[in-house]
This record gives sequence, C-alpha cells and structure tokens, in this order.
Amino acid sequence: MKTLVLKFGGTSVGNIDRIKKVCKIIANYKKKKTKVLVISSAMSGVTNDLINKSKLVSNNFEKAEYDTLLSTGEQASCALIAGRLNHIGFKSRSWMSWQIPIISEGPHSGARINRVIVKNLNDYLKSGGIPIITGFQGVNNKFRLTTIGRSGSDATAIMLARYIKADECIIYTDVDGVYTTDPRQYKNAKKIKKISYDEMLEMASLGSKVMQPTSVQDAKLNNIDIQVKSSFINKSGTLITGSSKTFSNQIITGISSTKNDAKITIVGVKDRPGIAASIFKPLSKNLINVDMVVQNISLNGKETDLTFTIKSEDLKKTEKIIKQNKKLSYKKLSFDKDVSKVSIIGVGMISTPGITYRMFQALASKKINILVISTSEIKISVLISAKQVKKAVAVLHKEFKLD
Amino acid sequence: MKTLVLKFGGTSVGNIDRIKKVCKIIANYKKKKTKVLVISSAMSGVTNDLINKSKLVSNNFEKAEYDTLLSTGEQASCALIAGRLNHIGFKSRSWMSWQIPIISEGPHSGARINRVIVKNLNDYLKSGGIPIITGFQGVNNKFRLTTIGRSGSDATAIMLARYIKADECIIYTDVDGVYTTDPRQYKNAKKIKKISYDEMLEMASLGSKVMQPTSVQDAKLNNIDIQVKSSFINKSGTLITGSSKTFSNQIITGISSTKNDAKITIVGVKDRPGIAASIFKPLSKNLINVDMVVQNISLNGKETDLTFTIKSEDLKKTEKIIKQNKKLSYKKLSFDKDVSKVSIIGVGMISTPGITYRMFQALASKKINILVISTSEIKISVLISAKQVKKAVAVLHKEFKLD
Repeated sequence: MKTLVLKFGGTSVGNIDRIKKVCKIIANYKKKKTKVLVISSAMSGVTNDLINKSKLVSNNFEKAEYDTLLSTGEQASCALIAGRLNHIGFKSRSWMSWQIPIISEGPHSGARINRVIVKNLNDYLKSGGIPIITGFQGVNNKFRLTTIGRSGSDATAIMLARYIKADECIIYTDVDGVYTTDPRQYKNAKKIKKISYDEMLEMASLGSKVMQPTSVQDAKLNNIDIQVKSSFINKSGTLITGSSKTFSNQIITGISSTKNDAKITIVGVKDRPGIAASIFKPLSKNLINVDMVVQNISLNGKETDLTFTIKSEDLKKTEKIIKQNKKLSYKKLSFDKDVSKVSIIGVGMISTPGITYRMFQALASKKINILVISTSEIKISVLISAKQVKKAVAVLHKEFKLD
Repeated sequence: MKTLVLKFGGTSVGNIDRIKKVCKIIANYKKKKTKVLVISSAMSGVTNDLINKSKLVSNNFEKAEYDTLLSTGEQASCALIAGRLNHIGFKSRSWMSWQIPIISEGPHSGARINRVIVKNLNDYLKSGGIPIITGFQGVNNKFRLTTIGRSGSDATAIMLARYIKADECIIYTDVDGVYTTDPRQYKNAKKIKKISYDEMLEMASLGSKVMQPTSVQDAKLNNIDIQVKSSFINKSGTLITGSSKTFSNQIITGISSTKNDAKITIVGVKDRPGIAASIFKPLSKNLINVDMVVQNISLNGKETDLTFTIKSEDLKKTEKIIKQNKKLSYKKLSFDKDVSKVSIIGVGMISTPGITYRMFQALASKKINILVISTSEIKISVLISAKQVKKAVAVLHKEFKLD
C-alpha cells in the first residue's frame, strides 16, 4: 500500500471553508486505499497575530515562550482538520510534536528536527487512521516545544516522509507548481513538470519563492520525491526529484531573477595577500551576506578594484563597516542600488557547450550590459541593471526555448 | 517560605495591558520572598472564538479534538505571561498540563484532575522560578489533552494548591469578592470577609456566579483556603475557608436568588407507591434537573398534587415528557414560568432557632406569597413570584442585619 505525506500551508487552511476543501483532498487520497499522513501549518494570519502579541508584551520576547506561543497555531489547525475528517466519516486525529514525538535539537525558534519516532504513527496508519500532524514544531530533550523557522512545516513534512518511508511528499500551497520563471513577471512562463533537487536548490536560492533551499536540501539528502501542487485548483504540479529521473533534452530548466541587490566597488585597493579576507571578515561578523565577488587583475601589482553584491537593505551598514576598516586603504567607494541578478539554471548545461556564449549573445542583442558574472556547474548568473530585468528574462526564456 | 497559588480568569488576562497588570501583581508577591505558582485561563473571547470555529467545522465536533483545540487558549496566555515576567526581570516559564503532568481521567470535555506530579514544579520553585500553568486542562493516560469543563481553571488551581501544599489559593477574577447578595440587584449588598465552604457551596449552587460549586467542593475536601479577589482593583477579597475559622455572630451570611425558574404542578395524580419515581425518572434520563419538589398529602388516599421546579428552558421538553408518560394518570397540568427561588444561607442558623419564622414573617410583611419551601441545615429557600424578588431580597437583607 502506498504511503503519502500531504503538507498544507497556511493559505491552504486559511479559513473554515478552505479547511473543508483540504479535507476533501485528503479524503480522495484515502479512498484510493493509500496510507495518508497530513502535516498542517497554522491558519494564515494566526502566526502573525501571535507574533504581534509577543511584540506588545516584550520587544525581546523570550525564545522558549515564543515557541510555546506560536505552536498553538498548528495545534488549532490540526484539531480542526481532524474534527472535520471525523465529521465526514473518516478516522482521524491530531498529533502534536510531543505526542509522536518529533524530537528537535538546537536553539529555540531555530531548532532542527533530529528524529521522529514513528511507532505510534505506524500503528495508527495500520488501523486506517489519518494522522494530522503539527508542522513547524518539535519537542526538545527538555520536553519543551521548539519551532524550526519559517517554512518549517515543509521541513516537518520531509522528515516525516523520511522516517515513515513515504512514497511521495506532496506540498500543497497557493501556487500550482514551479515555473520556468516568475509568471507574474513574464506571461509566457511555463510550469515545469519535473525538476532535479540541484536545479530546485539553485532556483530557490536565486529568488523562486516556492520552497526554502533548506527544505529542498533535506529532500535531496533523504532522496524524497516532492510534488508541489495547488490546494485551490485540481491540476498536476511540479515533481522535485533526483536528476536521474528528470532527464529531458531541455538544456535550461528555469530562469530566476532577484530584487533588492546592491553592488559595491572598492576602487584602488592596495593589493596584498589576505586583502579580500580583511574586507569580508567584518561583513560576515555583522551577518551581511556577500553574494557575487569579482576582483580585477592587479595590472601594476600594487592596486586592484574589488566588486561585490549584497542585499540593498545591508548597504548603509556595509558602507559604514568598510569606512571604519583601518586595515584597508583604497581610493574610492562606489555604489549601485539598482542592480539585479538574472540566472539561468539547468543540469543540461553540464553536457552542452556554448551556453555561456548563447546567454551573453542574447543579452547583447537587447543591449543589456553585464556588470558581474558568476557561474556554477548548473547555473550562470549575471548582474545587470534592475531596469533591464524584464527584457533579459524574456530574451533568455526565448533563447533557451522555454516559451 | 510561604507558597501561594494565584489563578487568573479570562477577563484578568483579557488583553496585553491586562497581562502586564497581572504580571505586576505576580511580581509583588514574588518580591515578598513567597513561592508563587500561577494558573491562567485563556484570554477572554479566545475560547468562544475557538468554540465557534469548531461549530463551523462540525455540529458534532469530536470531543478529543475539541479539547486539543480549546487547550491552545491557555497555552498562549501562559506563554505571554511568562514572556512578560521574563521581560521585567523574573525567572518564569510556562508549563502545559502534559509537561508537569496534570493527569486527568474521565471523558473528554468533562474530565477530572486525578493527580498532579509536582516534582519538577517543586524543583523549579526552589530555583526561584515562577511557573505559569495552563488551567482548565489535563493529559489522560492515552497522552491526549483533556479539558475539565467550564471554570476548570479554578479546579486546576485548587488541585495544584493541594498537591504543592500551598498555604493559600487566590482566585483573581472580575469581581472583588463574594457579596451578601448580588450587588447589581441590591445596592446595600456588602462584601463578605470570610465565608465557610458549606455556605459558599450553597451560595454557588443558588445563583452566586463567583465560583462553581464543584470547585468549592474540591477546596472543602482538600481543606484549601481560597481568597477571591479582583485583578482590577487592589482590595482585599473574600476568604472561603473551614467553618471553624469563619465564626461570627452573623446568623445569615448571604442571600441568593435565581432567575429563569419554572414551576409545574401535576394535579390529581393517582397516588400509588413509586409514583414520584415514575415521574422523575424520564426527566432525569433527559438531563432535566428537578430542583424543589413538594407533594401534597393525599387526603383521600387516592389522589395527590405534585409540584416541582425546573429551569424555564426545560419547560417545553418537560411538558412533552409528562404528557407522553403512559404510566401516569392525572387530572391537569399547570405551569408557572415567572417564579424565582430566594434563599438565605448561613451556618449560624444551626444554632439559632426561629430563623424560618423570621424569614416568613419578613416576606409576609411585604405581602410576598410563598409558593414552595425547601430547607437544608444551613439554608432556607422559598419559591416566589419573579416580580417580587427584589423586594424579597431587600427585606431579608435588612431583617438579617446584612445592610
């Protein structure tokens, strides 16, 4: 008998009508003689309301209590789902993390699921029951509730799928799958039927909002097939799986673009060994994430120009840190806030030469200037003017036959 | 070192400002080198909102899920209180029923606390911490959450006080104590300083809303001093304690009156052994609570009139049941919906003769007609026309020197 893990996000259970709809989806799987486990997020809005309450109580609300407070959201939605399934004639019950248990480790509000003891769940599944499991939370070795960060319910679903040895994990959300590029930005974007973990990881890291990179990484490590689907319309979604199962003659799978990037160039840095480290160490200490980095070749062996990108919100802080850096001698600092990173992603590029050339050629044909380039095995990213992102996505989408 | 249990009701923690106020009250006790345990209800409105959600999901919502759903209310309020106490510099944490544990037995939504394992709480108290404990709920031997009925948080507080061997249990609520009679109905009502468990039990059963009879009974059985106080104004409240500690020369402690009573008389019932049982058995089966009962002496040995009172809301159902009762032969059924029960309560009446006479005399002086009488060791109740209740309470309040 097949075992499925179904995960429903906050908007999927956002009100009582949606909870009823979700229960119909669950019931349909159950009728097909499938073992079904359900993971639910809190009803949308509930978590934010609880966060606001905590802020009113304290601007530095204690993390363990924060987790206890937020955990009530999933507890309530799971009880409502189980109650509804009972009402329409199915055997179902809610399971909180501490009842299973889902054991977590690490700090409050940023815990990780360590393991799941599935014995009781397995017995319940064998008896024909549908367990409704609280996402986003665990219980630690002090018997206290923890939460595992934003999108933690996805992580719960993947870990449950791993420990229960599920055949598939279906993530129900408010979009109907992963697209070749953001459909709100480019109307010819197409839904991707299958995508490899690595491609999805790049897509997620590069701006696609469908799944968090850490969840994709978890799925990859545990080799769990994930299907991303909409709980609002009944359509097939996107399967995220191992690259051996995603073979196609498509070279590029998708195109991502970011917003709110900023570029900094330090002109005329005195070139000496360890100079890059002395620039980036204080930034890293201040939790500023540096993305693309380019260092020009030092022609005279004495001075060089260093360019890197960060999130625009970190720009002021970064400027301050560089200016205060006494180990650093340079001529000029220059900034550009209106830049974006556009990336093409696809495992197909490993075996296909000339992709970089085709990308640059296509951008040049639309007079798009490339500021910085960075590449990995399965992606090429370019930094361009933010104003040209739409044009760039369109020309690349056509060039790599995604239309 | 003194150990106190403080219980805060829903209105006392009804919003964030009130939670902050409650934390000041707790902090004041803690500063006096007292061990303090706190029991909290859900923020007012939260429980009703959850109940409404369950009703939208199912008109017959499964009881175990109902308990799981409702339990989130206290979990959230306890986390907020603990978070606030941390913020103002106190060591505090929330404790859910399953973490302590508070072990319950009996059906979901109507469970009873069986015992409390206080070892961890005691260790925490010794370390100077303030435990904030979820009221109203327990965990059963199947490791599932249960709730213990309306006013269950009072029961939690009393059981905690018992197991932790507290010196006193203080119930913070939205009234500032127990009054000689309802102050909204009679402006000369006075706050009672001390009242015995038995008197409080009668008061609670007879319409005083301050505490549920079951909670008073629990306190009596475990000999726990309870103080009822307001969390809104800083005034001494009412101490509920053993009768040996409440001695005064007051004969009557308080006067209660009920609303929504109805009187039924079955005229000309064929008198035979067991006739009363055959009338009341089907009513009891249908969960209709019969209060006062009077059977006139059967003069001719053949027929009798039977009068009893019920809640007005049960009147139609009762009428139907009596009419369908084939074992019953009678001449006429008569109803009176506009009746109320007025009671005088006081341990002093045990040792003071003539109280009944004084009560009847006082009522007669105001031309108040007594329809039914019932008495116990420490109370006398009379059924009168609902229109005369105010007048009756006033004359009795004066007669027994409560003004």
